[in-house]
Amino acid sequence: MPEPLRLQGISASAGYAEGPLFNLDPVVARYGRKATAADERLALETAIKAATGRLATLIEATRGDAADILEFQLAMLDDDALTGPAFAAIAAGQPADAAWRQALDAEIVGYETSDQDYFRARAADMRDIRDQVLRALTEDSDPAAPAGAIFYGEDIAPTRFLETDWSSGGGIALKAGSAASHVAMLARSRGVPMVVGLGAVGLGASPAHLAGVALLDAEHGGIILAPSRAEVEAFRRSSSSFAARRDRAETFLARPAVTKAGTAVRVQVSIADPSDVDNIDVSTCDGVGLMRTEFLFGKTLPDEETQYRAYRKVLEWAEGRPVTIRTVDAGGDKPVPGFTVAETNPFLGLRGIRLSLARPEVFRLQIRALLRAAAHGNLKVMFPMVAVRDEYERAAALFAEEQAALTARGVAQKMPPLGIMVEVPSVAIAPEAFTEVAFFSIGSNDLTQYVMAAARDNALVAHLNSIRHPAVLRLIASVAAFGRVQRIPVSLCGDAGGDPAAIPALIEAGLRDLSVVPAQLAMAKAAIADVSI
Amino acid sequence: MPEPLRLQGISASAGYAEGPLFNLDPVVARYGRKATAADERLALETAIKAATGRLATLIEATRGDAADILEFQLAMLDDDALTGPAFAAIAAGQPADAAWRQALDAEIVGYETSDQDYFRARAADMRDIRDQVLRALTEDSDPAAPAGAIFYGEDIAPTRFLETDWSSGGGIALKAGSAASHVAMLARSRGVPMVVGLGAVGLGASPAHLAGVALLDAEHGGIILAPSRAEVEAFRRSSSSFAARRDRAETFLARPAVTKAGTAVRVQVSIADPSDVDNIDVSTCDGVGLMRTEFLFGKTLPDEETQYRAYRKVLEWAEGRPVTIRTVDAGGDKPVPGFTVAETNPFLGLRGIRLSLARPEVFRLQIRALLRAAAHGNLKVMFPMVAVRDEYERAAALFAEEQAALTARGVAQKMPPLGIMVEVPSVAIAPEAFTEVAFFSIGSNDLTQYVMAAARDNALVAHLNSIRHPAVLRLIASVAAFGRVQRIPVSLCGDAGGDPAAIPALIEAGLRDLSVVPAQLAMAKAAIADVSI
Repeated sequence: MPEPLRLQGISASAGYAEGPLFNLDPVVARYGRKATAADERLALETAIKAATGRLATLIEATRGDAADILEFQLAMLDDDALTGPAFAAIAAGQPADAAWRQALDAEIVGYETSDQDYFRARAADMRDIRDQVLRALTEDSDPAAPAGAIFYGEDIAPTRFLETDWSSGGGIALKAGSAASHVAMLARSRGVPMVVGLGAVGLGASPAHLAGVALLDAEHGGIILAPSRAEVEAFRRSSSSFAARRDRAETFLARPAVTKAGTAVRVQVSIADPSDVDNIDVSTCDGVGLMRTEFLFGKTLPDEETQYRAYRKVLEWAEGRPVTIRTVDAGGDKPVPGFTVAETNPFLGLRGIRLSLARPEVFRLQIRALLRAAAHGNLKVMFPMVAVRDEYERAAALFAEEQAALTARGVAQKMPPLGIMVEVPSVAIAPEAFTEVAFFSIGSNDLTQYVMAAARDNALVAHLNSIRHPAVLRLIASVAAFGRVQRIPVSLCGDAGGDPAAIPALIEAGLRDLSVVPAQLAMAKAAIADVSI
Repeated sequence: MPEPLRLQGISASAGYAEGPLFNLDPVVARYGRKATAADERLALETAIKAATGRLATLIEATRGDAADILEFQLAMLDDDALTGPAFAAIAAGQPADAAWRQALDAEIVGYETSDQDYFRARAADMRDIRDQVLRALTEDSDPAAPAGAIFYGEDIAPTRFLETDWSSGGGIALKAGSAASHVAMLARSRGVPMVVGLGAVGLGASPAHLAGVALLDAEHGGIILAPSRAEVEAFRRSSSSFAARRDRAETFLARPAVTKAGTAVRVQVSIADPSDVDNIDVSTCDGVGLMRTEFLFGKTLPDEETQYRAYRKVLEWAEGRPVTIRTVDAGGDKPVPGFTVAETNPFLGLRGIRLSLARPEVFRLQIRALLRAAAHGNLKVMFPMVAVRDEYERAAALFAEEQAALTARGVAQKMPPLGIMVEVPSVAIAPEAFTEVAFFSIGSNDLTQYVMAAARDNALVAHLNSIRHPAVLRLIASVAAFGRVQRIPVSLCGDAGGDPAAIPALIEAGLRDLSVVPAQLAMAKAAIADVSI
């Protein structure tokens, strides 16, 4: 029995899994070369058709974000620009498998080496496509993972995630990977434990380490290979406690959030797509504290009507509760082709309101859609990445101009209250420049990464990126105090709002209004009930 | 006469220039094809030899940083890996000019598209080499610029800068470029006005705009094409005032810095290389407030002896005045092959003390060299990018360990006072975690970029990157106040310390100790004399 080996990564989806490791890294399959180029061509066509059929079946069984990912893959498989070079190589005498691999690898390198996280995230989809077709070519079915296995390897394919039955447990432990990847998003929404960034060295551990049962603690971002008996016992206690907290949390869902001492806390939800509200009982939350609008900005810039319908849908769902929509926060780790620019340090670059003000023709469209939607509910609008007052004033002036224009044309509209995100430290340190804004919403993820100078998506500095550092909490408390004195409402949206470990500190800092992702709603309310303030 | 056209960029070297524009962008020269491949080969060999000779001559006349740049170019021209593909293409029937251009362009693309500023900065050197050889091939001499011309274009070659006689004025106005480029460094040290980041659109102005005299205001980062009479007059007033300030400043150089009200301010120098002190009269400054050590970390990691000699040289030059050496601040915009890692947001990544602690074997070498050098003068050591106390404690513990090891070996050494840079906002907001450090040195460039969430090298957000924002000044004032109460010395190193426009605010914030680059020493003292506190 080898010594226990503990590896530390980053939690991408909280939870616990105990089980055998299942190696995700690809095994090379043998391809039987065909007699003629025409046969090779037919083999590749058949394999692409098989992969397409498999994707279509999977799409049937899937919805929301996951379906989008699969549809991207389907579109790529249908794209002659992608498949053309492979067929050309076959015509030149290559076997189908080599031709396909070369054609895809050439594409994948471009995605992988892109400066932009967006394209790098797509590289996983491209590898997924490559491997699906290769498997179809060799008629090599995915080796089946045992129930409850912990999948480990460089990265995991989205289709692999979607085809796995997670109902009997299991989890994901990646050497590389990213908490911002598509699979990480899916894992969080389905409650599958997942850790990323475990490093290449560690998981290249001895075969004996890899053969046994492993303990995945995706609440704290670690994994133990070949655990000792004491470690197994401690793990099971943590795991039960986590499950108990999760179960107990469900009982809090239907009630308003109140601390032990009787302090009421508003808990709203943060959503990234209008369909996110489809499975939420509106009576379990106090409204939408953050509706992102980046989902509208995909391959093309959205038109006014598409935006208007998306905003209106959520406003009508909320039945009069407040819905806070954030104007587009493109840039940073959210590039939009044709809109954002490539930068050496995108988190410190032209993003959020900076970009909207630099592209007023795009911003005005969004403003008109928001003004029109405001007539259908309790809308509030906030601007991301404000650093100086001038940015707020210019954005508010554009709202006034567009309102006047809509009025002149007789279009139904309403001016929503206009607030700002507090995420650039300058605003938290000197909020007195913003007494005229309608509300503050503290963006704890970005605020923390700037105060600690540690990027929120970089595993190498994850130990520094903590909202519970006294400097971050001090800024949050001072913004909350400033809001109380000035009678400006202050809320918080960001991962900390839904993190039971951070919630006591946030309440202590004076916050009484949190916005959390729907999956964290119950846990957040339960954690609030434990606070003694 | 066209309408005046005002373009705004970023100042890379303060000063004023009025003169005709001179187009830097390359003109295509005709190359006369030779009869045989052997003749083509000879032509390229001769051209490379000519370019090499020209570089060697230039190196003779040059010293310091500039010579390093030229020696890099010389080394590249001598590298078969660079020239080989061109000779191979000639052997395959290509003419020498096309062969050379293709071979170099293939290399340049790699440099230009690198994630790392370091390699992107080298791209200018590679283009310089390409064009020097192409010019030698076509025997096309550089078109001569009129005296006092303002060079404008995409970028300027280092050799062009070094071959130009700047004694009769002139300046540089670049569409792209970077304030961190080699040429920008040279321009600052030689007092040549330079503006970068003017944008592609603006300077593609009408031929009439480009034909006349232009006004380059590199104090504020702007240029006016086809100026009105009133603009010319205002420009000349600003320019005279700048020159008068500069001249008057020289009279302050020999005296200690004192404000109008008699408040003494220490003014130290910031240096990037031991040779920077060669031309400074040590009696004109109060010591070295910042000695960077990145110059030691080039293609290979430095040995202990090389470091020791570099530190000792400056300590002996200072004649007992304090010399504050910063442990290596690699990462961010200062990658070191084999040491730093590629990151999506390097300014928020593994840099400074984070990297040193992650690579203790490299850090310990530097620590030993510092401990040994400390025996030869008044050394202080500071750690860059400290965010949390643990980092300071671990670094201090390594110093104690290495001191014990040196003592055990009977090696002469001394423990210097250990301080920290205050540049991560967390430290400025919550300094109480650092009461045991020997001193604080505020790094205003990084502090500002984090507080404003605006990268200091990104022209698109330069309008937000201001040390004079109330939030930045408030943090500086609170660190200064904390230092007074705790009796911890507080100084500031960063461009703001030498910026006459920022100095009054810094003194008002409570600072009495600034470190400036040698070229700004006189101006800084003069600006201090104007402050009424």
